[in-house]
Amino acid sequence: MARNLRLTLAYDGTDFSGWQVQPGRATVQGELSAALERVTGEKVLPQGSGRTDAGVHALAQVASCALESPIPPANLLTALNDVLPPSIRVTSIAEAPPDFHARHCARSKIYHYRIWRGAICPPSLARFVCHHPYPLDQAAMQQAAEVVIGQHDFTSFAAVDPEKSREERGSNARHITSSRFERLGEELVYQVEGEGFLHHMVRNLVGTFLLVGKGTLTAPDVRRILAARDRSSAGPTAPAGGLWLVEVRY
Amino acid sequence: MARNLRLTLAYDGTDFSGWQVQPGRATVQGELSAALERVTGEKVLPQGSGRTDAGVHALAQVASCALESPIPPANLLTALNDVLPPSIRVTSIAEAPPDFHARHCARSKIYHYRIWRGAICPPSLARFVCHHPYPLDQAAMQQAAEVVIGQHDFTSFAAVDPEKSREERGSNARHITSSRFERLGEELVYQVEGEGFLHHMVRNLVGTFLLVGKGTLTAPDVRRILAARDRSSAGPTAPAGGLWLVEVRY
Repeated sequence: MARNLRLTLAYDGTDFSGWQVQPGRATVQGELSAALERVTGEKVLPQGSGRTDAGVHALAQVASCALESPIPPANLLTALNDVLPPSIRVTSIAEAPPDFHARHCARSKIYHYRIWRGAICPPSLARFVCHHPYPLDQAAMQQAAEVVIGQHDFTSFAAVDPEKSREERGSNARHITSSRFERLGEELVYQVEGEGFLHHMVRNLVGTFLLVGKGTLTAPDVRRILAARDRSSAGPTAPAGGLWLVEVRY
Repeated sequence: MARNLRLTLAYDGTDFSGWQVQPGRATVQGELSAALERVTGEKVLPQGSGRTDAGVHALAQVASCALESPIPPANLLTALNDVLPPSIRVTSIAEAPPDFHARHCARSKIYHYRIWRGAICPPSLARFVCHHPYPLDQAAMQQAAEVVIGQHDFTSFAAVDPEKSREERGSNARHITSSRFERLGEELVYQVEGEGFLHHMVRNLVGTFLLVGKGTLTAPDVRRILAARDRSSAGPTAPAGGLWLVEVRY
């Protein structure tokens, strides 16, 4: 019987069309699948905790996959990193119970959105942050961020996911357990934890909080936008490059 | 009469064919020249303190250029950064004396070569360091690094520069004032300062010091290689991605 593995991955998403395998495009799942086949000879499609969009990065994406090969986890890790591009690293591999599934078993996810506040964004960070050197009212943004904590219908902050049917989409209710801004040196980082997120949800929240920071909207406006359940009432989608999947909790 | 400007630039060199303008290729000098023309309407070719090779990065490359435009330095800086790709940033601009020339006036340059020692190199650093997770004798490398301090003929560590005639190449004697390794977290950084450097010289030194770290060569071997004035006696050229032009002193 095949063993079940849990893999943790870090990646620079800039040059990938997101996590999910797509014909004719470089994706993280596709690269990982190809690396697994090259190392073990087995055709498997590792399941991620969720998809990340094109250009979004991960510090610790989690994937599960069943393998026949008896190769020890440490050797598999080295072999995979030898064939993967340097923009994708497997950071750990562990044996997992047979019923472990990276997506179904995930209890919560933590995303960070990194906003570079300095006048000049260092070229070595340009792929990994969103540069916003203009004035922002950080206290107002913090107030707005707190509005979304708890159970809410996030339709106003969800892009319609073209890859999911109406049934698959299901409810737009999500539970957010933490939502706050933290200043780290020249960066203002939005840190959010929730059981699950809708398509583009974190980036749409950040786009709206930036309007709050500029004074275009207020925290009560965000409460109103949330209640409206209408995508057009919220702010624009913030650029993908600032978004990081930081942790998946099980 | 045209004014003379001194520009400081940071860049991620990964996607450029080096500093120097070349037909049909993206270069840092070419991008800067195009940005200057777009902002001021003037066709100028800014002179760098020296060329950096394809894939080499800069924290503070210095360039000089004459401009007719009276645009204040702070405005020019903002306007240039608005049109340059995010992988190139102008970090400062100052008025310079008429006789200031970024290359001719440079007294010394400091390069760092970053070697990532950890087992796994984070994807966000993959473009900026050389990954070497294998055992290295750092004390032996430090001894070897000290061998090259002072005035030496560096022919053994120089690539023949195809863009320079025999006369232009001139003497291969160079004066190195500082040459050492420093451990910074997971990185081992080679830090070298000198009046000038030959083509590929820092990367050839690092490639040779890595052989010392592995035990293939010793510090006395490096002394012997230096005396041989023969490129074939030294180690291989270390990859471009780990090299940073950190400072130019005037």
